[in-house]
Amino acid sequence: MTIMGTRKLEALPREESLRLLRSVSVGRLVFTHLALPAIRPVNHVVDGDRVIIRAYVGTAIDLAVASNSGMVVAYEADLIDPDTHLGWSVIIVGRAYRLSDDEAGHFRDLLRPWVEGGSDDVIGIRADMVDGFRLVG
Amino acid sequence: MTIMGTRKLEALPREESLRLLRSVSVGRLVFTHLALPAIRPVNHVVDGDRVIIRAYVGTAIDLAVASNSGMVVAYEADLIDPDTHLGWSVIIVGRAYRLSDDEAGHFRDLLRPWVEGGSDDVIGIRADMVDGFRLVG
Repeated sequence: MTIMGTRKLEALPREESLRLLRSVSVGRLVFTHLALPAIRPVNHVVDGDRVIIRAYVGTAIDLAVASNSGMVVAYEADLIDPDTHLGWSVIIVGRAYRLSDDEAGHFRDLLRPWVEGGSDDVIGIRADMVDGFRLVG
Repeated sequence: MTIMGTRKLEALPREESLRLLRSVSVGRLVFTHLALPAIRPVNHVVDGDRVIIRAYVGTAIDLAVASNSGMVVAYEADLIDPDTHLGWSVIIVGRAYRLSDDEAGHFRDLLRPWVEGGSDDVIGIRADMVDGFRLVG
């Protein structure tokens, strides 16, 4: 099938978007650092209406969620064909917060930070807004 | 090779980072929209010290660069193994601006927006800051 035909961007329902997010294990955390837009790839699991990640040690991500009130971040995962560029992307926007030690322990076993060793935090992001779309040929 | 051994995050030199960015055609534009972090996958080419993208029609990306003074955005591309999570990520941060019609024409032929039809803008992002890293096993 040629990619020059009709291409259409389809909005996806919330549940379908979260299902797609659950089907992959790597995504990108988007936040603000020193008033500049920042993005880092991380490993995730989806737990109900939350995305759970482990931050790398000593990075800007730690700082971003250091305050107890949390901060609003975005999280994106996609699966896009490098040639046809068809595929899907799911973006959630919500408040990020550090999980309590009790809760963190469970997820620590399911996730691996990008670099081993040292202390690391387990961070939850509430899927307050979910924006999924699929580009079909 | 097991992935449980030593893993190391290596910072990459600027030129190597831009070379890796040039080796793929899809990345993610990170910007601020209505004071919230926003991210959208797009198709890119690297031209010297700039990343050139075509925005989708009618999205927040258009709004973000509508002013002549431009705005600071981030752009990220990566190639990360879904199983081992080894791979690379390159992030640039710089001012985004709409290209002039003359210059846009050249890049319009090299890029395709995600959805066909309608008017679309060609946007340049200056690679003022380049942050590349590779996670090796």
